[in-house]
Amino acid sequence: MEREELFGKISSENEKKMVLLVLDGLGGLPVNGKTELETARTPNLDLLAAESELGLSHPIAPGITPGSGPAHLALFGYDPLKYEIGRGILEALGVGIEVGARSVAVRGNFATLENGLVSDRRAGRIPTEKNREIIAFLSQKIRTIEDAEVRLFSGEEHRFVLVLTADGLSDQLTDADPEAIGRPLLYAKAKSEKAAKTARIVNLFIDRLTSELAGQHPANTCLLRGFAQYPQIPSMGEMFKLKAAAIAVYPMYKGLAQLVGMEILETGRTIGEQVATLKKRYDEFNFFFVHIKKTDSYGEDGDFARKVAVIEEFDQWLPEVLELTPDVLVVTGDHSTPALMKGHSWHPNPVLLKSAFQRRMPAVSAMLDAIACGPPEGTACRVSAANARAKFSEVACSGGILGRFCAMDVLPMMMANALKFKKYGA
Amino acid sequence: MEREELFGKISSENEKKMVLLVLDGLGGLPVNGKTELETARTPNLDLLAAESELGLSHPIAPGITPGSGPAHLALFGYDPLKYEIGRGILEALGVGIEVGARSVAVRGNFATLENGLVSDRRAGRIPTEKNREIIAFLSQKIRTIEDAEVRLFSGEEHRFVLVLTADGLSDQLTDADPEAIGRPLLYAKAKSEKAAKTARIVNLFIDRLTSELAGQHPANTCLLRGFAQYPQIPSMGEMFKLKAAAIAVYPMYKGLAQLVGMEILETGRTIGEQVATLKKRYDEFNFFFVHIKKTDSYGEDGDFARKVAVIEEFDQWLPEVLELTPDVLVVTGDHSTPALMKGHSWHPNPVLLKSAFQRRMPAVSAMLDAIACGPPEGTACRVSAANARAKFSEVACSGGILGRFCAMDVLPMMMANALKFKKYGA
Repeated sequence: MEREELFGKISSENEKKMVLLVLDGLGGLPVNGKTELETARTPNLDLLAAESELGLSHPIAPGITPGSGPAHLALFGYDPLKYEIGRGILEALGVGIEVGARSVAVRGNFATLENGLVSDRRAGRIPTEKNREIIAFLSQKIRTIEDAEVRLFSGEEHRFVLVLTADGLSDQLTDADPEAIGRPLLYAKAKSEKAAKTARIVNLFIDRLTSELAGQHPANTCLLRGFAQYPQIPSMGEMFKLKAAAIAVYPMYKGLAQLVGMEILETGRTIGEQVATLKKRYDEFNFFFVHIKKTDSYGEDGDFARKVAVIEEFDQWLPEVLELTPDVLVVTGDHSTPALMKGHSWHPNPVLLKSAFQRRMPAVSAMLDAIACGPPEGTACRVSAANARAKFSEVACSGGILGRFCAMDVLPMMMANALKFKKYGA
Repeated sequence: MEREELFGKISSENEKKMVLLVLDGLGGLPVNGKTELETARTPNLDLLAAESELGLSHPIAPGITPGSGPAHLALFGYDPLKYEIGRGILEALGVGIEVGARSVAVRGNFATLENGLVSDRRAGRIPTEKNREIIAFLSQKIRTIEDAEVRLFSGEEHRFVLVLTADGLSDQLTDADPEAIGRPLLYAKAKSEKAAKTARIVNLFIDRLTSELAGQHPANTCLLRGFAQYPQIPSMGEMFKLKAAAIAVYPMYKGLAQLVGMEILETGRTIGEQVATLKKRYDEFNFFFVHIKKTDSYGEDGDFARKVAVIEEFDQWLPEVLELTPDVLVVTGDHSTPALMKGHSWHPNPVLLKSAFQRRMPAVSAMLDAIACGPPEGTACRVSAANARAKFSEVACSGGILGRFCAMDVLPMMMANALKFKKYGA
């Protein structure tokens, strides 16, 4: 039986509330002996960890470093190797474009054509401002090609997104990108018969754009890569019978949440504003995905101290979340972004799960404390729950009662703890 | 998406070096309270363990005891339940026979025919010497059957291997073995139409052999079991873009390595000679599989002390491997061979992984020791690598930060730590 079928069978609605707090790129690697999470002063998280179940989750599988798309799909309960999100769709989500079932999205580069050859694949990285001007101009000039509606959206510097909408489109196309300079434009080719119409329209678009931009050197042509249609994915309502809401700041995460049927709640840009939104809308939904972005951003920058600071800021707002007394609360990351590596990594995510139906275990860190301070006076050589001064950390999670599992199992565990899963089989 | 497709997509080449040191049958069970690994004095492994990631890997899945074939395929990154290596191929690899895509291999027994009935399925376990004489004689007499080339290879006592090579052969045959004495010879039957030619040739071979050996009682006929073709398996070059080499002494392990596209390096029979080969050829490849056999051999013999001695011998050579400063180093077994059980077992393998991108964790055993004994005198309130009196052992690995995983995930984890895997998805 497939996951979807199993979950569809056993999911049931109830009033219990679940909150999934995702600190993007939370997991780290030690610098001067401690990871970001170990370095951060997090009294509230630590207290919570001492009375929660802890574990480590692989975003995809051991050794696999995920992008944001598959990492979040996994946290939402979907097999990230089954549901692929094409680059074009992710770019569209990233700039906040709505893409429907009849659309194909693709990311574009403005590029430079000289004497019939591509001389710069990024048009000298034109300023974003210039990009916006060109897109505004082109949006006036190219509104349809055959029966396809054409929509164009500026990205940063030389990047843009093209969305075509018509009946009978397909994303089964090769990239329209020579991939090296000194070569002529490369047109898209249909990989299957049903993509012939899309290939024809795409290639007409390239010619139209190049003709409209004649004389606009250096941005006088374009390359198109990563054709993608909206993935066919069951919603969280269908799969888990949830009324789900997302509280996220960045378009890509709102887009990913929307992809699985969450309602996107309006919110501000700070963690405090996100928590305020959670409190304000708490009665309306039974699942909340709250996405904190900056842990990842500073990890990507290699800025250990600022990543630590975001974790500490989050910790200060945690009591307000706890006051809502959600029936199931999870704090985790979508993947690790160690400042040491300045990028996403494969290292498993710390996971903290708090519910009324949990097993208890003194965290490994409690043992470390016990070592540090010696056994409590008058006690035998044993660590007891009483002296478990836990720390929410990668190492503590590694010794946690949840063990090691795949991130796509987080949501099923939340469902179980919220008593939203019926018994499987008799 | 299948593993092969995923790995093919995300693997990339770089110069980083990976070394996989496999002590065959490393894992054990306690005798007088300690396993082989716990008993062995291994100062170098213990020091390495204190600064490495530790874990336990299931060769196949919990509870499954593997043969050498599937256990090694898993360590090389292949799903051992997907790629089956037929017994005939494994026998051929075991005696060092090269088998190509057009061949079918099968293992044979010399047997005794009396009055048209099989009276001994092993021909009285004739001496190996006698076996060699018969094989030499038959190899002269039977060179082809129809268009198939016939090759015969002696095994121990009554065992031999037959390799047929021609176009259009298939291994979809039933065994030619009555499986009990007092029955007539049983001929092979084709399980599908495309195996009809092979069945005909095989049965002609049985008749030819029996006719050539008339009067050679007790070895005057043969039984054939386990027809197998060379498995279709992507190479490590295709799947992981690796330039891989094997430093192994025994034919079966060389054969298994060759099966996945490794280059087999000439080496001597001792661990010291194998390490010397590693050092000598270190510049030429970016992945090395070093196979130490004797841990398993003595485990199979039930010789606890000698298995301990091999582990200690290995430990003495370890510093020479470390001097090469491989970017990723793994020390593990392919399966456990507890001397107590005199055979392979299902118990998971100790795994030690050393790289620049690891999380650090004092081994649980060190913590337990420290708790038991209080903090080391005059130290501050922290466990440091210095006082982590780690021991590379089954128990230490059980509490390690890598947790529990399948052996087929070892290679992906090595790839990740060598930065040879690109991000999956955006």
